[in-house]
Amino acid sequence: MKPLTYLFFTVGLWLTFACGNKQPASTTNPATTTPAGKEALASWRDGPLKQAIIAYVEKVTKDGSPDYIPPADRIATFDNDGTLWAERPYVQELFAIYQVKKMVAANPALANKQPFKAAVEHDKAWFEKGGEKALVEMVGATHTGMTEDAFEAAAGSFFENAQYPVLNKPVKEIVYQPQLELLQYLRDNGFKTFICTGGTIEFVRAIAPAYYGIPKEQVIGTSFKYQFVDSNRTILRTPVLEHFNDKEGKPPGIQLHIGQRPVFACGNEGGAGDIAMLKYCQSSRYPSFQLLINHDDGDREFAYQEKDSASLKAAAQNKWHVVSMKDDWINIFPTPSATQKK
Amino acid sequence: MKPLTYLFFTVGLWLTFACGNKQPASTTNPATTTPAGKEALASWRDGPLKQAIIAYVEKVTKDGSPDYIPPADRIATFDNDGTLWAERPYVQELFAIYQVKKMVAANPALANKQPFKAAVEHDKAWFEKGGEKALVEMVGATHTGMTEDAFEAAAGSFFENAQYPVLNKPVKEIVYQPQLELLQYLRDNGFKTFICTGGTIEFVRAIAPAYYGIPKEQVIGTSFKYQFVDSNRTILRTPVLEHFNDKEGKPPGIQLHIGQRPVFACGNEGGAGDIAMLKYCQSSRYPSFQLLINHDDGDREFAYQEKDSASLKAAAQNKWHVVSMKDDWINIFPTPSATQKK
Repeated sequence: MKPLTYLFFTVGLWLTFACGNKQPASTTNPATTTPAGKEALASWRDGPLKQAIIAYVEKVTKDGSPDYIPPADRIATFDNDGTLWAERPYVQELFAIYQVKKMVAANPALANKQPFKAAVEHDKAWFEKGGEKALVEMVGATHTGMTEDAFEAAAGSFFENAQYPVLNKPVKEIVYQPQLELLQYLRDNGFKTFICTGGTIEFVRAIAPAYYGIPKEQVIGTSFKYQFVDSNRTILRTPVLEHFNDKEGKPPGIQLHIGQRPVFACGNEGGAGDIAMLKYCQSSRYPSFQLLINHDDGDREFAYQEKDSASLKAAAQNKWHVVSMKDDWINIFPTPSATQKK
Repeated sequence: MKPLTYLFFTVGLWLTFACGNKQPASTTNPATTTPAGKEALASWRDGPLKQAIIAYVEKVTKDGSPDYIPPADRIATFDNDGTLWAERPYVQELFAIYQVKKMVAANPALANKQPFKAAVEHDKAWFEKGGEKALVEMVGATHTGMTEDAFEAAAGSFFENAQYPVLNKPVKEIVYQPQLELLQYLRDNGFKTFICTGGTIEFVRAIAPAYYGIPKEQVIGTSFKYQFVDSNRTILRTPVLEHFNDKEGKPPGIQLHIGQRPVFACGNEGGAGDIAMLKYCQSSRYPSFQLLINHDDGDREFAYQEKDSASLKAAAQNKWHVVSMKDDWINIFPTPSATQKK
């Protein structure tokens, strides 16, 4: 995910975004989840990258091998936006807009008050001019100042019927099928899979168990300061940003939540948000594996690149593996029936 | 654990503490870890408290019961100092002293510089006079300003041969045998067990897997701000306190790391550090269980109480279960052979 400072610029962008007519992914039968690598990664096209993933997993899980990693240290971290699901627009932007609409409906006077006014009026200029301050106001207004229970209820209610624009499908169907298979394959081989997202932690926790099979406590994200309210034994979400879990913030987030380096890390190009995490992974004392998703499939998903190609350059310099969505993934999205099975 | 402000007052206290001649615990054969409650909790004396624990676990894990809790929500949190192992003195104090000695040996000039000077000279008055500022200096000097890897190496080397004074046994033998059984019993019934300590997070992570069977990522504690150093891909521990995980700090720590309320929580009287955690647990939407350890066994462990009895009063008001170490625990500590088996 891009830095928070970009988050609401892109809200503005999205607000003026014409809903395109992108086609859904091919509907080839989704993968089984047998531990045998080749079948487990059925949506990954046979080739050097798929072979490299399987070879890595096999060598570090083979008892007696010099490359063996004990199960307790088989830590895998995945970025979320652009790595596990689509990020054009960010789902969290959709939620912010959903919150604004709900809050304005409950209290119409808010429509005359910033940042609601700008959001309601699709006033991109206000967000651009306001910069970080406008952003903090927007996040504060829609994500904090409520109890943890109230926030969870709001996120849950959003996800119940959320539709993803552009791709024109339910949000639950914008996850990447090959990544679901990879997560499962790693778990079948004794890895613990974590999400390490620039998004806010509870928002991603709301769907991590159902969408990815990842329990809430294995989600690391951007967080606001909490306050325990003794009188009603709840936690209040205050508008004070505690940790921004992007770029150089990701390794500290991993250290705080996991306490050791991942041996397998996966991020994406697009916002340069995962370079630090991949570098940190690569400095593990164990053999490690770094994977970078390249969004090069404008037909089935999106094609976009960083202006300076920082992530792809870092991948080349550091010999990280790069996924071409176009070439390496047979399917991008799960078939609706596969999703419903979850 | 008591607030950090007390931590190094008690260092001073400990420095002048006469090594007593407390006797080790009885050496009855330790528990097996079969899931059947009565046998699993072999070091717990048969009686209403043991029955209540077993009845709770059985009712919330019985499929189809109105009290059933899905496995993903079976979260149990345990304080560490005074709850899972002895806290007179805190093991972390011993580590701070160990660090001071090591640092002064490497750089003798430090002996003339505070806070090392006060520690080397057992200058209790300096710590009392300096209050919180002295404390921050001491923690800063011994726990931060180094990489995460260096800190872990220091903690690991400390624990290798650490001896616990007063009880006169290795540190690894001051864990409470009945609690080891309780942790295992909960895990055998699908609970995830977490430590929620006032101590610093990495220090407890250094022993949580080997001593308690709790993986590093299931430890929540006091933390300092980390900084990712790109040049050598490590994390630097800065002396800025990020989160103080005691008293009202515990529920926010739980929210950040776990993302939901525990349904089972266990703390101890002594520093009033666990009242907020137990209250938070009790506000779960599920049936919940709160347990407070009362240190009333001066013969086998220690007998101490809060001046205002805040924890015991809260237990009575809120109908929490109270463990009398003297009456409810057949054994306090594991037999050395049982510990070596780990």
